[in-house]
Amino acid sequence: MEQTLVEKIISKNMGYDVKAGETVVVNVAFAALHDGSGPLLVRLMQERHYDKDPVFDPSKVLFANEFGPESTKEVANEHALCRRYALEHGCHWEEGGTGHVHAHVYENFLKCGTVCIVGDSHTTVHGAYGCFATGCGSTDMVAVTRFGKTWIKVPETFRINVTGQLPKGVYAKDIMLNLAGIIKSDQAIYKSLEFRGDTISSLSMEGRLTITSMGVDVGAKNAIMETDEHTREYLKKFGREEDYVEIKGDEDANYERVIDIDATKLQPMVSKPHYVENVDLAKNCRDQHVDMIYIGSCTNGRVEDLHVAADILRGKKVAKGTRLLVIPNSSYVFKECLRDGTLLTLAEAGAMIEAPNCGPCMGVHQGIPADNEVVVATQNRNFKGRMGNPTASIYLSSPATAAATALTGYITDPREVMD
Amino acid sequence: MEQTLVEKIISKNMGYDVKAGETVVVNVAFAALHDGSGPLLVRLMQERHYDKDPVFDPSKVLFANEFGPESTKEVANEHALCRRYALEHGCHWEEGGTGHVHAHVYENFLKCGTVCIVGDSHTTVHGAYGCFATGCGSTDMVAVTRFGKTWIKVPETFRINVTGQLPKGVYAKDIMLNLAGIIKSDQAIYKSLEFRGDTISSLSMEGRLTITSMGVDVGAKNAIMETDEHTREYLKKFGREEDYVEIKGDEDANYERVIDIDATKLQPMVSKPHYVENVDLAKNCRDQHVDMIYIGSCTNGRVEDLHVAADILRGKKVAKGTRLLVIPNSSYVFKECLRDGTLLTLAEAGAMIEAPNCGPCMGVHQGIPADNEVVVATQNRNFKGRMGNPTASIYLSSPATAAATALTGYITDPREVMD
Repeated sequence: MEQTLVEKIISKNMGYDVKAGETVVVNVAFAALHDGSGPLLVRLMQERHYDKDPVFDPSKVLFANEFGPESTKEVANEHALCRRYALEHGCHWEEGGTGHVHAHVYENFLKCGTVCIVGDSHTTVHGAYGCFATGCGSTDMVAVTRFGKTWIKVPETFRINVTGQLPKGVYAKDIMLNLAGIIKSDQAIYKSLEFRGDTISSLSMEGRLTITSMGVDVGAKNAIMETDEHTREYLKKFGREEDYVEIKGDEDANYERVIDIDATKLQPMVSKPHYVENVDLAKNCRDQHVDMIYIGSCTNGRVEDLHVAADILRGKKVAKGTRLLVIPNSSYVFKECLRDGTLLTLAEAGAMIEAPNCGPCMGVHQGIPADNEVVVATQNRNFKGRMGNPTASIYLSSPATAAATALTGYITDPREVMD
Repeated sequence: MEQTLVEKIISKNMGYDVKAGETVVVNVAFAALHDGSGPLLVRLMQERHYDKDPVFDPSKVLFANEFGPESTKEVANEHALCRRYALEHGCHWEEGGTGHVHAHVYENFLKCGTVCIVGDSHTTVHGAYGCFATGCGSTDMVAVTRFGKTWIKVPETFRINVTGQLPKGVYAKDIMLNLAGIIKSDQAIYKSLEFRGDTISSLSMEGRLTITSMGVDVGAKNAIMETDEHTREYLKKFGREEDYVEIKGDEDANYERVIDIDATKLQPMVSKPHYVENVDLAKNCRDQHVDMIYIGSCTNGRVEDLHVAADILRGKKVAKGTRLLVIPNSSYVFKECLRDGTLLTLAEAGAMIEAPNCGPCMGVHQGIPADNEVVVATQNRNFKGRMGNPTASIYLSSPATAAATALTGYITDPREVMD
């Protein structure tokens, strides 16, 4: 029987063939919480005295702080609560300033083709490993962390075929912003997005993770891809080649909708305020002055993203009246980019570089815009107030478009400044 | 006539010989404000419609943000206020994430032997350039920035003679903490501290700036030193050799008090909570577990400080249950330590490294302790609540003691872990 990727993964998990629409209780291979969802879970566990089965398997549960170093004592106290709980129960624990929860998961723990549940909406990112991965709230996470199981209605699938070579200046982020313009935020609700085609196969893992991270931002339950040599090589970087499993899709599974994207026709895109789906070509927005640029987040804070930005900024300077904030999204990325000179290139261009964390994406710290400021960010959401100031306007873009914009101070198609 | 260093500088400024006790109106060679004092000044200027003489000489006035990237929209708005004002009047302007105000001043603007006034108490730091430098509030800064002048009662001088070679593991910070134990915080109020002796002459500029930065923390109006080849070489690093002026002290000036410190007898020190003068030997505090270590600030965030810390942490790891935060105090320091591998060494040991700013020293952002946590910090003050949480306990130390403590998780005399 031909299956969608999500049907394959959940069938393997259950030990029998499942179909979209069925509700099943799956085994969770890895679960994680951050400093937004973790404290709620810990308080629920404590209030309900779930002492008998606190954590199904501490080696499969991670607590990670995304908002460190702490900006207020209240945040520091939430971190202390999670730290105590994680250490008491022998779970994995990552301090603030070491990266966002998802980077910890896909760099250090995640095995291809498994089920991964994190108390964060961007859990869809892990689909780039051929996983069924989705976020859920702290109440559901109590069941996940106690029993290692969760219920899932197997989603219907939108198959997204992306074919052809990406033109110069166009990146994975542009594919996803283009898709947001096609399916908006309401057409793929509770669907699985299955990304296929030679454009996807030729993308680096960094690019694939950019696409899957934004699955939730077009409303999907999950996003998923086949695995291949890129996946194996990426795992090898983290000393985890043994966690590679080949996951291949079928050709004639039951897809609810098929969307074909011709990558050769794509151009650098932005999402304009205040919705992800409000996309336009970067070159159509060139009169827009920008006060702050943020390169980072779980969507675009990886090594390749910083390389692209550094290539554009090398030997040049951030425009006067514009500030550039770069936050690598894990300690691995930070150290790699320290070693290969990328951070130096960015610092010499005038970027502020912070220890790995979520930065201003959530509006909690480190880079909150002033009133009425305009921001270009490589993150995944541009809702009103997302970055901590409801009067600010946020444009989303690729790291290339963000770096080009940093050079000029105006929204800039990166092809205008690339050698 | 033999003069104290402060009498010399002010005499030169006035064009006639002045004596301690006289009140004079001096010319200010350089003035600066940060994001604490700047917004108050801007509002005073605007409310009083001082449009006729807004800034005496924009090339001699700097506004610099110390708390960036911004953690709240309120802070971002204060920054925007200062940015607009500085740019409108043609003053120097430095974004958050580029360093603290004093580093900008002594790296880029300050000339030896001049008068420097900054809207920040640690302005005493600039005395290491043979300057009369002191902080004042935003109201006085209005006069300074409008007219380039301020009134000063020429202070009496405490001469501090420091002689002999510093033992291994003992640094400039230990000299100053030792002095804090001698003169406490109330004996040197409105005095000039004149640091002399072969220990001071053999210190790097980084070490000297550590000492003068804490002049205010033992109550003094200013701290001052002779200039020499070290000063010239330091200015050369910033392409400003022409701003070097030789400033030499006299032997028999009128000193209110002379304090002799035998450097060969010094040991690594800490200031215990909650007063700078509450000093003890680091080795006497070795049972004290530490939750967070902060290496940075205008007192100890320079290249040499980070080198000392990196030498201790190289190839080792921060103790589990302890977190280490390192914040270089200027873009120059950040880039130097990027280039020479210091930041990589620190990151590999597990340090969080942030863009240059004041960090948690003022309790405003980036590293606020949780309730009842214990912190070792290389900053200058450990008052209750200084780092943003009144239940936290702060120990002050040198970067060496801080790095050694990061390795063990307990307050540690650096000699125990140095090769």
